[in-house]
Amino acid sequence: MPKLKYPQESEVIMTEMVLPNDTNTLNNLMGGRLLHWMDICAAISAQRHSNRIVVTASVDNVSFKEPIRLGNIVTMKAKVTRSFNSSMEVHLEVWAEDVPAGIRVSTNQAFYTFVAVDQNGRPIEVSALEPQSDEEKELYISALRRRQLRLVLGGRMNPADATELKALFDVA
Amino acid sequence: MPKLKYPQESEVIMTEMVLPNDTNTLNNLMGGRLLHWMDICAAISAQRHSNRIVVTASVDNVSFKEPIRLGNIVTMKAKVTRSFNSSMEVHLEVWAEDVPAGIRVSTNQAFYTFVAVDQNGRPIEVSALEPQSDEEKELYISALRRRQLRLVLGGRMNPADATELKALFDVA
Amino acid sequence: MPKLKYPQESEVIMTEMVLPNDTNTLNNLMGGRLLHWMDICAAISAQRHSNRIVVTASVDNVSFKEPIRLGNIVTMKAKVTRSFNSSMEVHLEVWAEDVPAGIRVSTNQAFYTFVAVDQNGRPIEVSALEPQSDEEKELYISALRRRQLRLVLGGRMNPADATELKALFDVA
Amino acid sequence: MPKLKYPQESEVIMTEMVLPNDTNTLNNLMGGRLLHWMDICAAISAQRHSNRIVVTASVDNVSFKEPIRLGNIVTMKAKVTRSFNSSMEVHLEVWAEDVPAGIRVSTNQAFYTFVAVDQNGRPIEVSALEPQSDEEKELYISALRRRQLRLVLGGRMNPADATELKALFDVA
Amino acid sequence: MPKLKYPQESEVIMTEMVLPNDTNTLNNLMGGRLLHWMDICAAISAQRHSNRIVVTASVDNVSFKEPIRLGNIVTMKAKVTRSFNSSMEVHLEVWAEDVPAGIRVSTNQAFYTFVAVDQNGRPIEVSALEPQSDEEKELYISALRRRQLRLVLGGRMNPADATELKALFDVA
Amino acid sequence: MPKLKYPQESEVIMTEMVLPNDTNTLNNLMGGRLLHWMDICAAISAQRHSNRIVVTASVDNVSFKEPIRLGNIVTMKAKVTRSFNSSMEVHLEVWAEDVPAGIRVSTNQAFYTFVAVDQNGRPIEVSALEPQSDEEKELYISALRRRQLRLVLGGRMNPADATELKALFDVA
Repeated sequence: MPKLKYPQESEVIMTEMVLPNDTNTLNNLMGGRLLHWMDICAAISAQRHSNRIVVTASVDNVSFKEPIRLGNIVTMKAKVTRSFNSSMEVHLEVWAEDVPAGIRVSTNQAFYTFVAVDQNGRPIEVSALEPQSDEEKELYISALRRRQLRLVLGGRMNPADATELKALFDVA
Repeated sequence: MPKLKYPQESEVIMTEMVLPNDTNTLNNLMGGRLLHWMDICAAISAQRHSNRIVVTASVDNVSFKEPIRLGNIVTMKAKVTRSFNSSMEVHLEVWAEDVPAGIRVSTNQAFYTFVAVDQNGRPIEVSALEPQSDEEKELYISALRRRQLRLVLGGRMNPADATELKALFDVA
Repeated sequence: MPKLKYPQESEVIMTEMVLPNDTNTLNNLMGGRLLHWMDICAAISAQRHSNRIVVTASVDNVSFKEPIRLGNIVTMKAKVTRSFNSSMEVHLEVWAEDVPAGIRVSTNQAFYTFVAVDQNGRPIEVSALEPQSDEEKELYISALRRRQLRLVLGGRMNPADATELKALFDVA
Repeated sequence: MPKLKYPQESEVIMTEMVLPNDTNTLNNLMGGRLLHWMDICAAISAQRHSNRIVVTASVDNVSFKEPIRLGNIVTMKAKVTRSFNSSMEVHLEVWAEDVPAGIRVSTNQAFYTFVAVDQNGRPIEVSALEPQSDEEKELYISALRRRQLRLVLGGRMNPADATELKALFDVA
Repeated sequence: MPKLKYPQESEVIMTEMVLPNDTNTLNNLMGGRLLHWMDICAAISAQRHSNRIVVTASVDNVSFKEPIRLGNIVTMKAKVTRSFNSSMEVHLEVWAEDVPAGIRVSTNQAFYTFVAVDQNGRPIEVSALEPQSDEEKELYISALRRRQLRLVLGGRMNPADATELKALFDVA
Repeated sequence: MPKLKYPQESEVIMTEMVLPNDTNTLNNLMGGRLLHWMDICAAISAQRHSNRIVVTASVDNVSFKEPIRLGNIVTMKAKVTRSFNSSMEVHLEVWAEDVPAGIRVSTNQAFYTFVAVDQNGRPIEVSALEPQSDEEKELYISALRRRQLRLVLGGRMNPADATELKALFDVA
């Protein structure tokens, strides 16, 4: 296991065409189908960082702002933002494209976390991540705050101890 | 449109058997597949409350604690917890069952939000919800706090204004 | 293995949304797709009664009276009606719901039979069933007649010996 | 519409490979999956007889005697046996083949009925069928008895009036 | 292993109904979906010739001339044309049928090659093939030319050595 | 429609995880499944070049050299190499990755051709392509030879007229 890996080494680009069975009665992509695709894309990214089998530990709040239409092309880009012992946070960006119309819009972003496991499903340590670009550094730093939010929401951290998170609420 | 509906009227029970294509190389259900099932189950619940076509607006943080195995039976139970104009929050509980072994465990819970829309996809008002049991009342009240968290995370509310949410951090 | 189990212990509720690939060119649910869903729902019910792996032994005559439309919600409810050594009869009721229109109709009922097997696929004895409600008692009693019909149709019983079945034809 | 058609004109041969998602935890084909394939195969046969869109009206009792394994090849052969105004009975035979082992067994037979409909889903008359081989003639004649059984089981015929069916029970 | 087998022994007929998820936004069958079906059909044919597990080695140039519509019935017929040690060439013909309209057109033909392998995936010798009809004899002879083209295109044969193939270009 | 487009503008990267239903009984990806994925990936590339709906016109000879295993990650990269009136040739490269083992191999390459069509399915002219890198230029030039081979194999060109192709056979 290398000591350090760069975000670029875990980048995954996944492209899907929205088919009839992926859509609701308005012919728009169902949110759950997109969550399914994003999970696979992010899992491959976490695999690339850890060179291990990975299991989904959580997905953070995801909003669906833009309807994605039947026949649209969905592109997802995933990269690991930070690792913590055996777990990794993965950032995803999603675009939808009406190719004949030449229109491409950013539709979602999301954070998934994964745990690297051995063949028996036991957690196993992964490489640290060294961010390089400014955006990667910003995601690396804010990963701590998102982690605290997950722990608080999961009942595994007392909100009063979530120092990073409290800063979000700008309280003295 | 009735003025008021009860949570019980939107209850949906969905049962799925975990098949090979739903699993990763450890033969465990992939997280994204479960998110997909939960979205469909919750969407039906929101449809029942609103008697409208609904589109997924967001899913809150979901954690995956327990591995769910190939051949397991997954049961999901969804109910609307509160409505806000055209949007509804749906609460889901998930159990996994190894039926031959007689073991059933609670594996997840989640909150999805949906927007009721007309045939052109425009938001349309839905009935208010009147909670009845103690658990329904507790979910109804806490829905406000979860909504503020969604708005803050979505950049649509200033954290300083999230009164309900700040209370979570126990700050004077 | 408990001596006796109640029908309620094997109740399964399954909910499906009719998607484009489930439909024919009239946008109605294909009969075979529904038979597939019913088989899974009934198999889970038989698993719950027996706490065993089960294999489908037969399905009785099923009629399809009402067209079920694309986007409809299909709800199935299954319960074991009676057990015979290693086999179990399961009764299913099916409803289709046009949720936005607020219309729900009973569309089908069916009887599937399953055999409980061990890891090598050999039949293995299951608990007896004790019906409780009037409807459960009626289904328990009539199970004998349906079983004779299966045996006669399968060429494993001489029609002349099918006492219960002959009663159906009201012959002295 | 031709006055008469021959069974041979509606013959359909369908071949499927049993894939992982078609199987239960014993790696055997699930009964419901086979019922789904048979429905499609039989529907094509009824389409060929009627040159119409067809909808499944019923499936008669089907028994599953032989386990069909993962990787097996399933061959189905369907032919219309008789038509009644707008409805057609289709007979199916099913074989499973372990090709590397050179073993092929007959596993099932079934009768499905279909109704020919126009673009609005209304029943529409179909050609009569003229059986030619001895087997086709025998199936043509016995179709009457199976039809009475369906009507009796569906509560649409008084058992006392089911002349053909009563003969089965050998009662004077 | 028999010394010789006839083309007829490896004939496979496969029938598929074009469902929504198989189609593009013009409601026509996607080419890749048809290539997928043809691969399965041809693989079963090669299995029948060799009584072995087979793996796809190549597909020759396939053209898609006729659009195949949603709801059409696709019939494929496959037969082994010639074997070479452990490999087999399979010829496929494809028809599309608009059954209600009573129209059936030939849409494609293709040649796939397969290698017979043992349980460890190592190539293993197969029976020779003895063509019988004139068409089978013609396909048997021309198989040599197609094989040379594959080898040349795959960079495993010097075009100058492709005697059979050069004849195609009518060069002295 | 722009006069000219660059190959880079039509680049598509698609990533797929090999799931159980994609594999044969040796747990290797079936060739037809890969052909299906490649068709979708190449179609999106042709859509991006033409900003039109596209239909598959042909696939050239594809060889499958390396087995791709269950759980492997398949990456496809597609780019348009040349356009001819309403048709476009797309080049695909495919890699398979055993991520936990850190092994990535080039497994295939392929050429698909597509025709851009209007809403009625009639061919419509597309932009010319201007290659930029040396590799793009080489693919642009050789596209003519591959086109002649397609025309010859499709019986639409006399081999004697296939000047480019004859050069391949090094004949004076």
